[in-house]
Amino acid sequence: MMRQGIRKHLPNRALKAGLPPGSLVYIGRSKKAASAETRITLMTFENGTVSEQEVQSVADLVPLKPAPAITWINVDAVHDAKLLAEFGEAFHLNPLLLEDILNTEQRPKSEHLEGLTYVILKLFDFQAQQEEILSEQVSIVLGDNFILSFMEEVSDEFEPLRIRLRTNSQRLSTLGTGYLAYSLLDSIVDSYFGVLEKIGERLEYLEDTLGGEQPPNILQNVHRLRRELIFLRKNIWPVRDMINMLQHLDSEKLIPVQPYLRDVYDHTIQVMDTLESYRDLLSGIQDLYLSVLSYRMNDVMKVLTVMSSIFIPLMFIVGVYGMNFKYMPELESHWGYPLTWTFMILTALGMLAYFRHKRWI
Amino acid sequence: MMRQGIRKHLPNRALKAGLPPGSLVYIGRSKKAASAETRITLMTFENGTVSEQEVQSVADLVPLKPAPAITWINVDAVHDAKLLAEFGEAFHLNPLLLEDILNTEQRPKSEHLEGLTYVILKLFDFQAQQEEILSEQVSIVLGDNFILSFMEEVSDEFEPLRIRLRTNSQRLSTLGTGYLAYSLLDSIVDSYFGVLEKIGERLEYLEDTLGGEQPPNILQNVHRLRRELIFLRKNIWPVRDMINMLQHLDSEKLIPVQPYLRDVYDHTIQVMDTLESYRDLLSGIQDLYLSVLSYRMNDVMKVLTVMSSIFIPLMFIVGVYGMNFKYMPELESHWGYPLTWTFMILTALGMLAYFRHKRWI
Amino acid sequence: MMRQGIRKHLPNRALKAGLPPGSLVYIGRSKKAASAETRITLMTFENGTVSEQEVQSVADLVPLKPAPAITWINVDAVHDAKLLAEFGEAFHLNPLLLEDILNTEQRPKSEHLEGLTYVILKLFDFQAQQEEILSEQVSIVLGDNFILSFMEEVSDEFEPLRIRLRTNSQRLSTLGTGYLAYSLLDSIVDSYFGVLEKIGERLEYLEDTLGGEQPPNILQNVHRLRRELIFLRKNIWPVRDMINMLQHLDSEKLIPVQPYLRDVYDHTIQVMDTLESYRDLLSGIQDLYLSVLSYRMNDVMKVLTVMSSIFIPLMFIVGVYGMNFKYMPELESHWGYPLTWTFMILTALGMLAYFRHKRWI
Amino acid sequence: MMRQGIRKHLPNRALKAGLPPGSLVYIGRSKKAASAETRITLMTFENGTVSEQEVQSVADLVPLKPAPAITWINVDAVHDAKLLAEFGEAFHLNPLLLEDILNTEQRPKSEHLEGLTYVILKLFDFQAQQEEILSEQVSIVLGDNFILSFMEEVSDEFEPLRIRLRTNSQRLSTLGTGYLAYSLLDSIVDSYFGVLEKIGERLEYLEDTLGGEQPPNILQNVHRLRRELIFLRKNIWPVRDMINMLQHLDSEKLIPVQPYLRDVYDHTIQVMDTLESYRDLLSGIQDLYLSVLSYRMNDVMKVLTVMSSIFIPLMFIVGVYGMNFKYMPELESHWGYPLTWTFMILTALGMLAYFRHKRWI
Amino acid sequence: MMRQGIRKHLPNRALKAGLPPGSLVYIGRSKKAASAETRITLMTFENGTVSEQEVQSVADLVPLKPAPAITWINVDAVHDAKLLAEFGEAFHLNPLLLEDILNTEQRPKSEHLEGLTYVILKLFDFQAQQEEILSEQVSIVLGDNFILSFMEEVSDEFEPLRIRLRTNSQRLSTLGTGYLAYSLLDSIVDSYFGVLEKIGERLEYLEDTLGGEQPPNILQNVHRLRRELIFLRKNIWPVRDMINMLQHLDSEKLIPVQPYLRDVYDHTIQVMDTLESYRDLLSGIQDLYLSVLSYRMNDVMKVLTVMSSIFIPLMFIVGVYGMNFKYMPELESHWGYPLTWTFMILTALGMLAYFRHKRWI
Repeated sequence: MMRQGIRKHLPNRALKAGLPPGSLVYIGRSKKAASAETRITLMTFENGTVSEQEVQSVADLVPLKPAPAITWINVDAVHDAKLLAEFGEAFHLNPLLLEDILNTEQRPKSEHLEGLTYVILKLFDFQAQQEEILSEQVSIVLGDNFILSFMEEVSDEFEPLRIRLRTNSQRLSTLGTGYLAYSLLDSIVDSYFGVLEKIGERLEYLEDTLGGEQPPNILQNVHRLRRELIFLRKNIWPVRDMINMLQHLDSEKLIPVQPYLRDVYDHTIQVMDTLESYRDLLSGIQDLYLSVLSYRMNDVMKVLTVMSSIFIPLMFIVGVYGMNFKYMPELESHWGYPLTWTFMILTALGMLAYFRHKRWI
Repeated sequence: MMRQGIRKHLPNRALKAGLPPGSLVYIGRSKKAASAETRITLMTFENGTVSEQEVQSVADLVPLKPAPAITWINVDAVHDAKLLAEFGEAFHLNPLLLEDILNTEQRPKSEHLEGLTYVILKLFDFQAQQEEILSEQVSIVLGDNFILSFMEEVSDEFEPLRIRLRTNSQRLSTLGTGYLAYSLLDSIVDSYFGVLEKIGERLEYLEDTLGGEQPPNILQNVHRLRRELIFLRKNIWPVRDMINMLQHLDSEKLIPVQPYLRDVYDHTIQVMDTLESYRDLLSGIQDLYLSVLSYRMNDVMKVLTVMSSIFIPLMFIVGVYGMNFKYMPELESHWGYPLTWTFMILTALGMLAYFRHKRWI
Repeated sequence: MMRQGIRKHLPNRALKAGLPPGSLVYIGRSKKAASAETRITLMTFENGTVSEQEVQSVADLVPLKPAPAITWINVDAVHDAKLLAEFGEAFHLNPLLLEDILNTEQRPKSEHLEGLTYVILKLFDFQAQQEEILSEQVSIVLGDNFILSFMEEVSDEFEPLRIRLRTNSQRLSTLGTGYLAYSLLDSIVDSYFGVLEKIGERLEYLEDTLGGEQPPNILQNVHRLRRELIFLRKNIWPVRDMINMLQHLDSEKLIPVQPYLRDVYDHTIQVMDTLESYRDLLSGIQDLYLSVLSYRMNDVMKVLTVMSSIFIPLMFIVGVYGMNFKYMPELESHWGYPLTWTFMILTALGMLAYFRHKRWI
Repeated sequence: MMRQGIRKHLPNRALKAGLPPGSLVYIGRSKKAASAETRITLMTFENGTVSEQEVQSVADLVPLKPAPAITWINVDAVHDAKLLAEFGEAFHLNPLLLEDILNTEQRPKSEHLEGLTYVILKLFDFQAQQEEILSEQVSIVLGDNFILSFMEEVSDEFEPLRIRLRTNSQRLSTLGTGYLAYSLLDSIVDSYFGVLEKIGERLEYLEDTLGGEQPPNILQNVHRLRRELIFLRKNIWPVRDMINMLQHLDSEKLIPVQPYLRDVYDHTIQVMDTLESYRDLLSGIQDLYLSVLSYRMNDVMKVLTVMSSIFIPLMFIVGVYGMNFKYMPELESHWGYPLTWTFMILTALGMLAYFRHKRWI
Repeated sequence: MMRQGIRKHLPNRALKAGLPPGSLVYIGRSKKAASAETRITLMTFENGTVSEQEVQSVADLVPLKPAPAITWINVDAVHDAKLLAEFGEAFHLNPLLLEDILNTEQRPKSEHLEGLTYVILKLFDFQAQQEEILSEQVSIVLGDNFILSFMEEVSDEFEPLRIRLRTNSQRLSTLGTGYLAYSLLDSIVDSYFGVLEKIGERLEYLEDTLGGEQPPNILQNVHRLRRELIFLRKNIWPVRDMINMLQHLDSEKLIPVQPYLRDVYDHTIQVMDTLESYRDLLSGIQDLYLSVLSYRMNDVMKVLTVMSSIFIPLMFIVGVYGMNFKYMPELESHWGYPLTWTFMILTALGMLAYFRHKRWI
């Protein structure tokens, strides 16, 4: 998954400037993704049996089993424009949307074109130590008897789902590819909660350190976290509209799973709610930190002022009797020294009483 | 009720990752709730008479009395997935919603499915000392001749309502289960005012301490209160939409109580208004505190500056006559010492006049 | 009118917890109101003549003169649940709304039920010295041939209206009770301008003191004013919707006065606009005050720094020649003392030039 | 034009309290306006010829030339209630709107009543030195063959329009009174750009002074400008809705000029956009100023700290050898004095190196 | 492109005050543009062949080839009112919109009038060093068989598009002028990403410098960047509505390219999203900077306080034994001097321990 600070907030479209619309170029910053080997795995559900295989080329995929059977084709590390062009031809994908699949800095969106439903969204991971969110694009194409899923990197995000489907594909048989699409979306949105959990822990950690005696300098951390929350919000916000759109799509594949989609929709709302709360909490933590700074500054200044105010008059007094005038009667007196001490002690006590009265000490 | 600082802002869904939809698992953080013993109480209203009993299993509940009679089944400490599954079977509850009842970190919501109306919301309690909001989930299922209420903990929230119903169940007979549902919602929303009252008192306390001479360090308190208000807002906001939805639901059980629901709706608006006011007041208190800090810093600095500015010149003068030069005519003079004092006193008075003019003292 | 700081932001519903809906209990905090004697005054308009009388009980009121005549019944200091119950019976008032009349912490609202129109809103007064808003609830019930107005306290708010009606009740005869209702609303909304005027003067006063040489500590004032503005906004905002609703109500009593209601509506918009401006102005004043604090702190620090920076090096020099080393050639020199002075004066001038260059002095 | 600081944010309705609706009283604060002499000028467009004259009374106006001819009657310094009443009678103006024309603290609004279209809005002027916005109310009444314009003061705002119409009244003949109304509105909205230009220059000036070496105290200026922007926004915002309403009014006089009104509408949008930008810029300037203050405070403190930290240890050292103990071996040593100097110089250099390392100097 | 700080936020309409609507005057501030020579280039697409030529006058343009052929006329440095008037006549352009083309401070807008579609928007460039956005207006007129594009300056913005069209004009033949219009819009919106990329790099640079040890004074930079973002937002926001309007325009030229326009629309959303993120990031950077200032101030104050608090008591002690009293027993003692040193060292260590305990050092 890519890691790039502020840069990730910017769609890297400059690379495509001057190309005609529909050009297939991989626009992603993930070096790891670009160098990983593309892997195509196939999972077929037919009459309650599940078969899995790994294929090398698109040619090995077609023809797919006809409609009662369901085929799920997952492509990891999708950065090979040529391969994608073959997919486009084999499955009659729209060129503009093929382009969006390769451009992994796409805003989440879904479209329904020529009988196929396209869904593009993001997976996230949060590195607590660097306070950095990594992201990876997932594109899903939903056909009558197949589902294509394109992952930007080699990912095991869908492994739990696969395990479940191997042992229990009953509901899938009943509800068709729509249910599989729902399952993919559901596991993606569910993964957002994991990311939120990690961010929540980090927020809690920051909050706890602030509550302690010696709050460390957490400015950079707060700033980084806020930056990442902005990034997350920007990328999750459209998912809500997207799933809402799927929910109301008049597609015969999706109508049977509408109650399920509604559940996913509720989850995205919950994710958004939590993100908003986090933003509020984060700005609360920042305010708290700034007031802690102010409070401690007050503290430091009080120490300085108390020390100075007590000793400066005393230093003046001892300075006076350090003068070398020939005629200073006090210096000759036997009681001069002890009286001076007495006077100085009284002065110091007076200042202490004053500061105690002001509650500075 | 659960108490967990920032963690409560996060739905704890990680526990369910990988489970198929509709799995019944208790997802709550309340240890107290998880260990408490489930209690099922039954209250039957028939022909103006009220009968109450406590049962051990779901089997003891069915068959319920038919429609003119109304049965209210309350389940305290609902964390037993098996028991809930039995309820699901006996009352034909929807599996997805059964799951929501067990997942006590649900966002408030209501659904109308297969003739049953489901309402899920929260009860709150505010611990003024820790400035912490405790929450507990309440789920209500409304059928033709029965109402199910599932509480996350053992709770006496509905006790006043029970007392009222024992003596006066007339309106209940006329208006049916809808009136009972309204009564439950009404006592829940009314309890929100109690929580608001407690928070208001805490706000008032903070405001008062700030008005005093020596404002204490209330940063943590303000931060905690704000965190709790965010939590409350997030959990009460959907209640408004929920009750609005119930109000416009075309359900024959709810239509007779629509004016009552409108009353509850007005109350939730009032709760939201008050919450918004509290947020504003809290940020006002924070601003006030920060300006108090600034103001006091100014004060401290003035004392330091006045003390230093008066004594530093004097110390310089006495330093001059503490020098050991052989030829310093002033030292020999008889008037040197008294003249020096005079000069120093005039200097000090001049500085005092200057600071008085600047209104620093 | 009641005065209670932050407490007024909170609906005092705790008193009613456990009571069935429709219970008549006075929920107000105004002690003055609770102890004042209820006063019922009657004003009848018939064939262009106006008759006024004060009655002791509801029984003296009925039967009212029939429809072409208009009767305005005003009840001051309404806190007697029994009396209100009698009113309810005599005029067929809805029990839920009777309850709202007694609960003087109601959110402004209007309802049209069973041929009667209910309007509940607030009167305000601003105590400039305490920066406190006092409020009083007014409830108006509009029937075919009568208007009931219930005031929380003994009030002369409607006296100017009465004077006007005594001499000129022509339009009232033409337009019916709707015009009387409009007149009451109009004089209430007009009174808001008086409150705004007072608050505006207070804002102006605060702004002026800040512009002076020695801005006083106005933190508490700003905080209190903001609290009161929040309170006002919360209570006036719903009035807008309320009057809008009356304007579009399909009631034969109100249709003839719709242009008048539109005028009142424009006034409430103007009130809201002004309130928003005040909020902005107030936060502007707060920002200004905080920057004044910062600016003055800078000033204080500059004096300290300039004083210290000039005298500290000088004190070091005189300290050097105050040392008691046996072999210090300078001390023996005849020119040592005057040269030291020269050097010190040059040093001081250098520092002064430096600070002048930095524009600190 | 009136000038009154915060007071202008407040509608001065207190003067009208107790008067029946429709009472004609001049409610304006402009003394200049109240004392100026009312002037009525007449401009008649007929068959391509333009005639102008000044009249003394309303009686001299009527009867107007019939419909193909267009008469524009402009009234400067409208504060005479009697005169306005005569206008009301002669042109059948609505009493409520006549009242609004005299109440020069009206919110901008437009109404279409009994075949006449009323438009009330404001002219502004910005006094850059005092950072004060002056305002003047303009009321326009649009009839079939006439336009009335009432100005609060004696104004030459429409002079350029008059000059244009004298030489070129062709389009006016084609498009009728609607075009004249549009021309008036257009020249008013255009004048807003002039005000914005002046405010923009003031903002630029403030920004520039902040960029300099010694930013002056611009707090008051920023505060005043913000106050005036709030005032402007409050008075221009409704103009947008007003013109939008005129645009969609089904009036046969206005339909032919709809594309022109759309142009004016675009301009008001642009004015609002610019006002919003100004608000953002102003708060940016305030933030900048506050950070400049912080930055300079840092600077001042660094000088103080560096001076103190270097000289305080040195003063301690010279203090030590200023002690009068009998047995201090160093004092007797021949090398004591030069070694002390060496040590002090090294200490000072060490401190300097430390602060240089910290980049404080 | 023009560069003018705050001034660019202001539409320079003052120049036009008093002119009748539809007057052709160049209202732009770009001196460069005003002095550049106007250049008219022609690109004709017919039967798959592309021909290009540069013409001197409008007369050389007409008659255009009829509808199956497509002519793209591009005018650079459009500031010559006479030339534009000729264009207006030759292509039947609406005078109000011609005026908008010359007024290069137009808000982005699109209109469909008399069979022609007008689109006016802006090109931007970001000068990273001065943190300044330069802008240039582009106006596009879409007819049946021609497209006019008017650039404020001599620009090579469309060069890549031209190159593409020379080699591949197939889709253009199929989809007609609508596709050419889309291509122009697409390359303009795409250029926004380049500007965003540059701003993003600048933000990143600011963020990085703040993360370093010695954050420089970046106040001015942050302020300037914010000002430019406000400017950008104000000018890009309407583009979204504009393209949305084009998308839903019932124009036979645009209907075939609706999916393409939708793509452009998505891009403008992405641009707006990114702009919003930038605003948030920028205010995050400002907050960070202010807290860094506070933190460092704390640091400076601690050094001062620690130094003063350690040495001031010591200086008092040495002052005491610098007094010249005749009878000071300590001075006579042999152990006086070493004991004093011991005491002073212990005092200093005590203070150090105290500050270490407070974590100030």
